[in-house]
Amino acid sequence: MSTQFQIEAKSGSGRAGKLITPHGEVETPVFMPVGTLASVKGVPQDVLEELGVQILLGNTYHLYLRPGVETVRRMGGLHGFMSWERSILTDSGGFQVFSLNDLRKVTEEGVTFRSHLDGSLHFFTPESAMAGQIGLGADIIMAFDECTEYPAERERVRESMELTLRWAERSKRYFEEHKEEVPWGDSQRSRARRQAAKQVTADRSQESGATQALFGIVQGGMDRELRRESALRTVEIGFPGYAIGGLSVGEPREMTREIVESTLEYLPADKPRYLMGVGTPEEIAQYAAMGVDMMDCVLPTRAARHGLLFTSEGKISIKQARYAQDENALDPRCGCRVCQRYSRAYLRHLYASNEMLAQVLNSEHNLHFYLETMRRVRASTQDRVASK
Amino acid sequence: MSTQFQIEAKSGSGRAGKLITPHGEVETPVFMPVGTLASVKGVPQDVLEELGVQILLGNTYHLYLRPGVETVRRMGGLHGFMSWERSILTDSGGFQVFSLNDLRKVTEEGVTFRSHLDGSLHFFTPESAMAGQIGLGADIIMAFDECTEYPAERERVRESMELTLRWAERSKRYFEEHKEEVPWGDSQRSRARRQAAKQVTADRSQESGATQALFGIVQGGMDRELRRESALRTVEIGFPGYAIGGLSVGEPREMTREIVESTLEYLPADKPRYLMGVGTPEEIAQYAAMGVDMMDCVLPTRAARHGLLFTSEGKISIKQARYAQDENALDPRCGCRVCQRYSRAYLRHLYASNEMLAQVLNSEHNLHFYLETMRRVRASTQDRVASK
Repeated sequence: MSTQFQIEAKSGSGRAGKLITPHGEVETPVFMPVGTLASVKGVPQDVLEELGVQILLGNTYHLYLRPGVETVRRMGGLHGFMSWERSILTDSGGFQVFSLNDLRKVTEEGVTFRSHLDGSLHFFTPESAMAGQIGLGADIIMAFDECTEYPAERERVRESMELTLRWAERSKRYFEEHKEEVPWGDSQRSRARRQAAKQVTADRSQESGATQALFGIVQGGMDRELRRESALRTVEIGFPGYAIGGLSVGEPREMTREIVESTLEYLPADKPRYLMGVGTPEEIAQYAAMGVDMMDCVLPTRAARHGLLFTSEGKISIKQARYAQDENALDPRCGCRVCQRYSRAYLRHLYASNEMLAQVLNSEHNLHFYLETMRRVRASTQDRVASK
Repeated sequence: MSTQFQIEAKSGSGRAGKLITPHGEVETPVFMPVGTLASVKGVPQDVLEELGVQILLGNTYHLYLRPGVETVRRMGGLHGFMSWERSILTDSGGFQVFSLNDLRKVTEEGVTFRSHLDGSLHFFTPESAMAGQIGLGADIIMAFDECTEYPAERERVRESMELTLRWAERSKRYFEEHKEEVPWGDSQRSRARRQAAKQVTADRSQESGATQALFGIVQGGMDRELRRESALRTVEIGFPGYAIGGLSVGEPREMTREIVESTLEYLPADKPRYLMGVGTPEEIAQYAAMGVDMMDCVLPTRAARHGLLFTSEGKISIKQARYAQDENALDPRCGCRVCQRYSRAYLRHLYASNEMLAQVLNSEHNLHFYLETMRRVRASTQDRVASK
């Protein structure tokens, strides 16, 4: 009644599958664009649909501060609030508390932190993070974890990992007791929205008993042994999906890859595996080939806002003067609407003139590139199986 | 071979007509969104097409500074550069030189001014303004004028008006000698773009001899007598269309209306009449009823970026806390994609959180409201004639 996962094809360690959430189907491996504040910066929801986005990520920390969980809950959760009838995943807030708050204070009970907006004091616990995520009403929510800093001593990493395991149990307990409180409602407005969104897959969120799915998070720093232990003990607690957290926190890329590879071994093959917060287009393709099913990253949209564009010929910094009179498409091999319509010269002009449209178009292109990368990996996994 | 104008219906002083430019048909009265730097801020060209925009305005002053006329010319003019295959009008730069440059120096020959970007010195003459606008390649271009400041002594207004008349003659002379230099080219790329734009009306820009149309501008400050003289003498020079310039420069609204009304009397009924730089939705409807055919204004897009939204129930400041949990559409009677999909609560959240999508969606809605206002005026003019 919550999220299901089906593997359709395997090739080496990679797999092509389907995640079936109460709000539709998600073909995996999947890249999830980040919609921090219930918006993928600069990209309207209908464009996301046209891009083929099947699942979005929202940040609990940011949404908790603005507009607040209660407001979102009253609007029927994030789906209703942002008018997005496809799948959504929220993180637990743990990573933002870690990355945006130098003065956070962690105790057994939870984390005290100051808002990056106004300095006001807040307190997150596994229970309050679950309550927040239930109120936001994403299809997939994440256990509250501590993201261990890098570098860190082994003893510190172990303690942090143990805390995350205890918080995982508390997260699961709270979730099981409160999961019926998810605010999915079938208002006329949301029906109309679904029609407008031309959603073809069944919306099962109104079926009796449909609930969110809570995923566990593996920590353990850059220590393969602790990662193994964290994975095994998180699996023991038992979740319908598992994330690898605590990476992309400043460690060398090669180390990230090693930790991912060694952690994946200990995650159940029949459950979705989510690698949080990576990476470049090359990296997401590599991780997918290693058996990761879900990824998210701000890179495509953030890079876009800085004029860095991903193309089949490599990265382009569109601000460069060399593009000022370049009539070619940004990426001649790209089928996105930006490349179909506009020249590099125009995109360069928009960026150099600080026009808002630069960020809108750049973001659309980069997202297309990421999504297309994943679609290609998925198709090649299926092809390789079919040709056997 | 350049722009033609047909009046299809009249009701009182108002008229419904059709402006046929080398890049398509424009139903009048028409509101022209302002695309200052070859972009209507935050609104992609395909959305403008969906909104039913038939003609855009570009600002010569801004485009001259960035990306420069030569760059645009090499890309086939603004149509090719910004991938917009429908009609375009450029102003002459005179108004921006006036409004953005306190230190401008006007002589008989032209205007010396400093770039608002880097303080560099530039010199515009009627001839260079025409050369610039021919290079930009809009369908309709404007004579180079001096926008008289407000308030001003009668003698100063007269001198300024006389200068504008002499500059109008020089503009026309230069244009007639150089109009064949318009950079409309039929590259494969532009053919593909036109198909992508699903342009249904004929693109006549490739017909041999298709040229731009140069409109004259009436000045004369707030003096009805000088306006009359300016109108008659501008008509004597002879243009395929006439603009009323020098308004919305700080004078009371009632004065604007009076000057427009008295000036319209002296403009030929069979030529398009363009009122520059106005106004609110109520005002543009009033001016259309008075017989104005074309208008432009930054108000819908600028107001949108400040969270001011036009609705059938009046203006809304979406930043207000009262909308924080308002599930209603911004304007329940509006058919635009923003009102069909999103709630006031969501728009308020986007604005309050400084999300780029706020500006994108707000601009789309306000433009729809302006365009719909004009379509309503046009339809009612035709209906009133039909029911007689």
